[in-house]
Parts: sequence; structure tokens; C-alpha cells
Amino acid sequence: MVGISASDLMSPTRFAFLLAHVEQFKGKLYVVHPTGTREDFMGVDVYPSLADIPGPVDHVISAVSRERTGQVAKECIAKGVKGILVYTAGYSETGEKEGIETERELVRICREGNLRLVGPNCMGIYCPKSGMTFGPDVSTEAGSVGFIGQSGGLLMRSGALMPRHGVRFSKIISYGNAADLDECDYIEYLVQDPDTKIIGAYIEGVKDGQRLLKVLKQAAAAKPTIIVKGGLTQAGSRAAASHTASLAGSKEVWEAAMRQTGAIWVADLDELEDMFLAFQFVPPPKGRRIVVLGTGGGNGVFAADDCEREGFVLPPFDAAMREKLGGANFTNPIDNVLLFGYKAGLGLLQALSRMDEFDCMLAYLSADVVPQSVDTVQHGLGRTLEAVIDFAKESPKPLLLVITPTYAEFGLKEKAWNSGVLALYPTTARATKALARLMSYYEMKAQREA
Amino acid sequence: MVGISASDLMSPTRFAFLLAHVEQFKGKLYVVHPTGTREDFMGVDVYPSLADIPGPVDHVISAVSRERTGQVAKECIAKGVKGILVYTAGYSETGEKEGIETERELVRICREGNLRLVGPNCMGIYCPKSGMTFGPDVSTEAGSVGFIGQSGGLLMRSGALMPRHGVRFSKIISYGNAADLDECDYIEYLVQDPDTKIIGAYIEGVKDGQRLLKVLKQAAAAKPTIIVKGGLTQAGSRAAASHTASLAGSKEVWEAAMRQTGAIWVADLDELEDMFLAFQFVPPPKGRRIVVLGTGGGNGVFAADDCEREGFVLPPFDAAMREKLGGANFTNPIDNVLLFGYKAGLGLLQALSRMDEFDCMLAYLSADVVPQSVDTVQHGLGRTLEAVIDFAKESPKPLLLVITPTYAEFGLKEKAWNSGVLALYPTTARATKALARLMSYYEMKAQREA
Repeated sequence: MVGISASDLMSPTRFAFLLAHVEQFKGKLYVVHPTGTREDFMGVDVYPSLADIPGPVDHVISAVSRERTGQVAKECIAKGVKGILVYTAGYSETGEKEGIETERELVRICREGNLRLVGPNCMGIYCPKSGMTFGPDVSTEAGSVGFIGQSGGLLMRSGALMPRHGVRFSKIISYGNAADLDECDYIEYLVQDPDTKIIGAYIEGVKDGQRLLKVLKQAAAAKPTIIVKGGLTQAGSRAAASHTASLAGSKEVWEAAMRQTGAIWVADLDELEDMFLAFQFVPPPKGRRIVVLGTGGGNGVFAADDCEREGFVLPPFDAAMREKLGGANFTNPIDNVLLFGYKAGLGLLQALSRMDEFDCMLAYLSADVVPQSVDTVQHGLGRTLEAVIDFAKESPKPLLLVITPTYAEFGLKEKAWNSGVLALYPTTARATKALARLMSYYEMKAQREA
Repeated sequence: MVGISASDLMSPTRFAFLLAHVEQFKGKLYVVHPTGTREDFMGVDVYPSLADIPGPVDHVISAVSRERTGQVAKECIAKGVKGILVYTAGYSETGEKEGIETERELVRICREGNLRLVGPNCMGIYCPKSGMTFGPDVSTEAGSVGFIGQSGGLLMRSGALMPRHGVRFSKIISYGNAADLDECDYIEYLVQDPDTKIIGAYIEGVKDGQRLLKVLKQAAAAKPTIIVKGGLTQAGSRAAASHTASLAGSKEVWEAAMRQTGAIWVADLDELEDMFLAFQFVPPPKGRRIVVLGTGGGNGVFAADDCEREGFVLPPFDAAMREKLGGANFTNPIDNVLLFGYKAGLGLLQALSRMDEFDCMLAYLSADVVPQSVDTVQHGLGRTLEAVIDFAKESPKPLLLVITPTYAEFGLKEKAWNSGVLALYPTTARATKALARLMSYYEMKAQREA
């Protein structure tokens, strides 16, 4: 059950925004508003106060003014509410005395009343399993990735964008100023959450570095844990301070800390998505011997460079290996095979996956082709991609897919995204980096467990 | 004038592909074919042999079999043709004796007859000014970027894709095995070509390293010169050898070599495009003090990190500076201003551009917003982007634009690409890296000229 508390001064637009976050919610939903009616609030039951709601309320989303938020918290405590999420900004992130003190007072009220506080200055929770989303167009498909972070904008974008690329979330939690619950609390929660198999965190600043290291070590021992850090420079740190009142640390400190914990430290949200996809779809390879199936000379050269740079080996084909594939004149990367359509493509993938000489596979679709043969290519590439998807469903070897940008959109990426079985990357550089990080994670885990 | 020479065994599809490359050609076009008629070849005049064409022929595009190519070269020489472009593959890139010897013989014929050879094993020339494109859908807008490279696929993709992102080419030359003319010849040509202001090269391997260094030094002294190198690892080098019969070098050697020459060495085609856009649209900033205008806390933190990492300084706003902007509570990066629409956005950009405290500007549009307010955002962002475009037309300060990926396509990127005045980047990391490289180039040039 969710109650929304709002002042009678809140604009209808603002209120519609709040309601849209929860309009797919599967539990019971109430609006608290002194004068509004059901007609004003999209048919949701309206009560003049929290106390008037019949039966228990678990969670309250509040966007009333800063001045009234403390009072709402008190009403929550009186009603027996367990958690309050405060969108409202204007607290410690302003750097001003009044904001800092009001935040401290809000935390005091919540803690005294055993009411846990998410925020303030945040953008809410995405929990597709219970139908809490960031809006009506956002996916309600639940998955295994738990993602927490201080930034509302970045997390909302991730919640809306990443599911279109195949990432399925258990929870996304935007926690803003972290005045009560902080990154350590949320990560500890995700570690024990049975729906979460992969943990991601966007962190701007840390209040208790020692505790964070301990928590990350526990997290990485239990589940793949990926960290993005904002504010690693002086300028970035200043920006973080004015954003969520956070103290940031230097790059060197973070690098050393991450190595200690076993968590994977990535540079940005793109790399974070790359790791979510890898851990969702790619089991750990047994070794670093890779076979690349590509479509074109220059791409093959870059792919080979990227593989070797990330520590992978491309075993060349000898006569015996070519024999297993029917005697063709193969090199590794294999040139031009992925335009061969469904049957030949699937046959080749299957034959390669049975060869002991390779531990993992990188398939590479590229439409570096003549614009006037768009139909042929679209059909050929489309059928080949179908072979890759069908193969991926039962592949005995870890497989990644790359589709490079092209002059025309063939709908290939969408097809791969929607397959629900493939980790798709826009470049071989990103694919091989993600695969290398995934292997390092599992190797580190095995070492620590040994 | 262009003649196409083809064996009577060539498939109609293959021939259509060749013709499509030149169907927008502004000069006179002929087909050479022993039995075909105008009706067979899209209405182009057909002659049974080169000798039968009335009047002179400047350039021949040949895709006949390897076995017949030498004979075609001889016919070209007899006709007084100046250059032949050979699509046909199967030469030295096969690594086999017959291919190597046939290539050597083809080069001997061409050089004896003073016929210059592009290729073999290449995908042709894109020269929008004369209407030679990679196909009917490829831009015919001519510009200032000259791009050469061994890979046909990568260069065709660039020719089709980069113009959609605002890059305008003078020439793209795919030269395959470089059997006669090689990278040094093409770069020397672009250095003296008045239509070319910016030089790019994708290089897999080099036959004469000393000459290349000399040529690159001359090129970089004259025009911004950007190099992408494929085959920097053992695996990549092997792939390059089977692709265009090239010997590659190590990363360390290239790094040192590029520093010597003053050319800019980038990692991949994305970074190459980033530099093309920067040199097209961004004049050299006077210094490294940057102001960032953005839309949201987390993005601002990353943007500040990226700026400082690339050597830029974000001067904070003091009271006097805020006064110039009307007293608002600005920080640098400036938060949330780019949603303010046309008038406020343009006013702020203009005011900032007049401030002596900044040398360059980074505008940052991001739709990290609530899905249900798509209309508002689309309108707001769209109007703001119009302000950025109008401002860019007469900006007294170098300006870059970033538009981050979002859950919905608002047509913003297309609007920026089509403006013809803006260097657009998908991340602040790529924008700041491109700007830093641009500054380094101009600084190096000034030092050498001093």
C-alpha cells in the first residue's frame, strides 16, 4: 500500500508526475490531499489525511514542501508507516545552514519514530515486480539487476533506457542526499534480496568509507557488484557537493579500494550497462581462447586488436580445425560468414561451439555494405541474426554479440535486444572489455573461495 | 569521364552495384561490355571495348576477374586512360604465390604504361563534388574532410554514416592492397588538394615507415591530420595480413611515431569522427577554462570529471560573475538551464560567451526526465536546442554540444546534425577528449611554427 501525501498547493502537473510513478502499482494506492477528489487524481481514492486512510499503510511518497515534510513524517509515525520517500529538495545539498538543519531535524524525527527515510532530494524507486515504475511507458518486466544511486536523473534514465537493451531490474533506488539510509544500507539490502543476482551502484560521495569497503567486499563475495563513481576530480567533487551534498574521493583511492573489495569499477553508465548485460547472459568462460565471427576485413582487424588488448587469445585455424568445419579456408577472426543466412550461420556456430580449441565466442554483425543492396543485406543479416539468437538459447559456450552502427537502421539491434538471450554491444572494444571484466570477477571469486 | 569494364560473365547484381557507385556522377559515364545494351545497364551508353568509346576516358573502374584485369590495364594504356581502380580481390592478400605474382605483374603493366592503379581489393572512391558516391542514398554534399584507408567496408560505412552526423567529405579513397599508390601517395595528394582542410587515414600496415613519418609530418604541419591504426596487436596484425597483405607495427612504436609527426592518433572510427567534427566546427579555444551548461546533477558531476580529466578548468562563479548573469545562484557546471527554452537559453549562452572568465563552452542537453512529461520535454528541449543552434552560428567562443541517449527519441540529434554548424557528441567524455586533442594539435602547430 502506498499513500501519497501532498500539500493543497502542489500543482496538478507535479501531482500527475508523482502518480504516474505508481500508476502501474499492483497494491492499494491512496492519495492524501486536503481538498481533492477522485476525479482530480486519476480515479485514486483520496483522503484528507493519512490518519483517515482505513487500514495500514506501508510506504509513503512525499513531495510536500520542505517546511511541511517533518509534519508528514510525524503523521507517518502515528499511522505506523514503515518507510517514507521524500522527493522534496532544498536540504543539505544547498550548502546552506537552513537546509542542513532542516534535514538533520527530519532525520531525527524519522529515527525516533522508527520510520526509515529514502532521500530527501531523490526521484524514487523502480520495482517492476510490484508495478512501481518511473512512468507509464517504463518496462514492468522484473529481472535480476539491483541498482542504487544518488542521482535521480541518471537512475531514471537507466530505468527507462536499459530495459530496452535487455537489462531486467529487480529494483532501482534513487536515494539523493542519503540522509538516513545510505549506500551501505542499500547495498546490504541487495546482497540479501533473493530477487537480486547482480548489484550496481552509482556513488557520488561516501560518508563512512570503512563501512563501504566492508559492505562492498561482502557484496562482491556474494554477487557480481559493479560500481560507477562520480566526482573523482576536484571539479567533479565540487559538482557532487552541490548536487547531493557528498564528499568525493580521488581516482587513485578508489582504484585501490575497488581492488581490495573485488567489486568491478567502471567508468560510466554505458560500461555499467555492458556489465549488467554480460552478467545476465554470459556464463564464465573456462579460458581466454576466443573465436570471432565477423563480416569484413577492417572490422576483423579491430576485433582482433580488441581481443588481444583485453587478454584474449585468438587460436588460428590449423588443418585439423578446418577439417572439423568442412575444410573451408578459415582464419580467426572468421571473415564474412555472418552474411550467410540462417542455416549456414547456425551450422557454423554449432560446429565452432563443439571445438575444444575455443572457450568463448564473439559474433559480429556489420552492415558495411553497398547501400543499393539494402534488401539483400537486411534479409541476409536478419536471417543470420535469427540463427545467432536460436544458437544463443542453447549455446554450450559463452557468446557475445556485436552489431556496429550502420548508415541504415535494419531493426537488427531491436531484434537482438528483444530476444532476451543476448548481450549486445555496439563495438568489439566494449564487448571484449565487458567479457574480460566478467572473467576477472569470477577468477577473483574462485581465488578467494579457494 | 568514367568507363566501367566488365566481363560478360559478371552478374547483373554485381554490375548494378558498380553502377550505383557512379550513378550520380556529373561527367560522362560509359559501360564496357561485350554483349550488353543500354537497357541492360540503366540507360548508360555501352561499348564492346574501351577502344570503341569515342573521345578520351580519364578513369576506369574495373571489376573483371583477376585473370582478365591485366588485359584491361593494357587496353587502358592504349586508350590513354590516367587511372584504373581495381575492385577485384584475390591478389597478395590471399598470401598465396599466384595472387602475389599476378599483383606484381599488374603493377608492372600499369607502371610501364604510366597508368596509376588504385587497389586492387578495394571499394572505390567517394567524391561528392563530382557525384561519385558509394550508392544512390549517400550524401552528395561536398566538404573539407579527406579520408583514406585500406579497408573497403570501414570506409564505405564512414562515407554513408558520417555525413548523417554532419561530417562533409572532399574525398574518401579505399585503396585496398596499395599495390601501386600507397598511403603516402594519398596523404601527399590530400595535403596539396585545395578542397581538403582536414586529413584522416585508416592504416593497417605500412611498406615504408620512414617515408610515412616524413609525409605525416608534412601533412600535420599543413592540416589537422588524424590517424586510426588497425593491427596493433599480434592477432590484429595477423588479421590485417590476411585482409590487405599488410605488416602492422606495435602500439608503442606507433605512439612514439605519432608524437614525432604531430598527427593525432585515435583509437577507432568513432574517435576519428569526433575529430572530424571538432576540426570542422570548433575554432581553437584561447585557453582551457570551460563553462558547462547542463541538465541534471549526476550528468554535471560526470561532465566536471571529464573536463578536469582532459585538462580543462571549470572556473567557479563568484559574486561578480553571477552579477553579469543577473544574480542567479550559478555553479559551474550550470544545472538545469537548458530546459529553459529558446529565449532564456539564448540569453544565457550569449551572456556567458561575453565573459572573459571562460575560453570555451560545453552545452549539454539531456532528457533525463519523467516519461509522462514527454511533450513538455520535447518542446522545451527542442526550443532550447534551437537556441543553441542559432547561438552557434555566430558564437564568439568555441562551443561543443552533447546530447545523451534517452529512453525516447525526440529527433534532437537529427536536428543538431542537420544544423550544419554544431559538433555533437554522445557523451561529455568524448566531447572533452576531442576538444583536448584539437587544442593539443593547434598548440603543437604554433610551437613548431614559432
